[in-house]
Amino acid sequence: MEIAIPLYDRFTALDAVGPYEVLWRLPGARVRWVGAEARPYATDRGLQLIAEATLDDVPAPDILVVPGGTGTRDALGDERLVEWIRAADATSTWTTSVCTGALLLGAAGILDGLHATTHWAYMDDLARYGAEATSDRVVRQGKVITSAGVSSGIDMALTLAAEIAGADVAQAIQLRIEYDPMPPFDTGSTAKAPAHIRELAQSPSPTPA
Amino acid sequence: MEIAIPLYDRFTALDAVGPYEVLWRLPGARVRWVGAEARPYATDRGLQLIAEATLDDVPAPDILVVPGGTGTRDALGDERLVEWIRAADATSTWTTSVCTGALLLGAAGILDGLHATTHWAYMDDLARYGAEATSDRVVRQGKVITSAGVSSGIDMALTLAAEIAGADVAQAIQLRIEYDPMPPFDTGSTAKAPAHIRELAQSPSPTPA
Repeated sequence: MEIAIPLYDRFTALDAVGPYEVLWRLPGARVRWVGAEARPYATDRGLQLIAEATLDDVPAPDILVVPGGTGTRDALGDERLVEWIRAADATSTWTTSVCTGALLLGAAGILDGLHATTHWAYMDDLARYGAEATSDRVVRQGKVITSAGVSSGIDMALTLAAEIAGADVAQAIQLRIEYDPMPPFDTGSTAKAPAHIRELAQSPSPTPA
Repeated sequence: MEIAIPLYDRFTALDAVGPYEVLWRLPGARVRWVGAEARPYATDRGLQLIAEATLDDVPAPDILVVPGGTGTRDALGDERLVEWIRAADATSTWTTSVCTGALLLGAAGILDGLHATTHWAYMDDLARYGAEATSDRVVRQGKVITSAGVSSGIDMALTLAAEIAGADVAQAIQLRIEYDPMPPFDTGSTAKAPAHIRELAQSPSPTPA
């Protein structure tokens, strides 16, 4: 079971690492970190992750996990990446995205006519790809699963793990990564955060990405 | 505000990336990824993150975040790393760990006489460092904060963000990373998971790390 996570400059680290930390624990899983080139890719604040293979090296993964990031806007103009996503989806068992990774699925024509989600600040962008924006945290449409901003990839991946390997294995993975979340505040969605927090989160500082 | 995250071979990616994704968004934050050498370090399943500086390059960070991983046991025997942690703690404002990173704090003598936590499978190991094992997800003792397994670093870092920059900024970061967790199961702690899931999570397969 080959799981491909394509990297591009200024992707968001947690978008990619959250699902990775769940999915590599599936029996028979092999995660492939790929990029236009096999080289390090910088996240949106300096940290670099290494794509150990090129997109061409992994043309037909079973599972596709597309992360978002501040670099998504530039990546949308990278025809090679978008075309690779389109081709990979044609033969994948599951096609998934985290955060603004959904926009890359959209650019590849995968979301046309589907319900989908992305980071709350980019929900309006989904319509241009023919998708119907949905505020659920994890949105499944057949083999396509999109999830909300950044941290939602953990929830998405556990949902996917249950589909692939059954609820027991998914629950064991959830316990293994001790995912019993206890956020100190209840402001993790726009529906829950008060207006002054929403405004602060939209300003360029202190949360630029 | 310099935030150092020391890497070692076979650390767990999410242990490090969860706090990173929160803390880099703090006003004035600069995250330093450090290692015994400035080179890529492999996580416990292949993915590589780059330490862009050596331990010696960052001798006195304001904040220390020590990740865990399957490589922790070997790292405990790395006197240079343990000594660096001890020295960094001597001048840090905050010293923190995720998962078995707590054992490295312990080896550095930082947990003696403190309440502390770690991954549920390693709680018994805390006693050898003079720490009192505590099953809370995030345990603060003065400037020392330890957190539970793998995913708990997100909760730890948001708690720390509030201490450093106030609740509004922490809440805005939580919204920015859309941390409104909705795990598909309620099996993320040993207190909640049924016996057969606990057994499955303890077996080498399907969740080897």
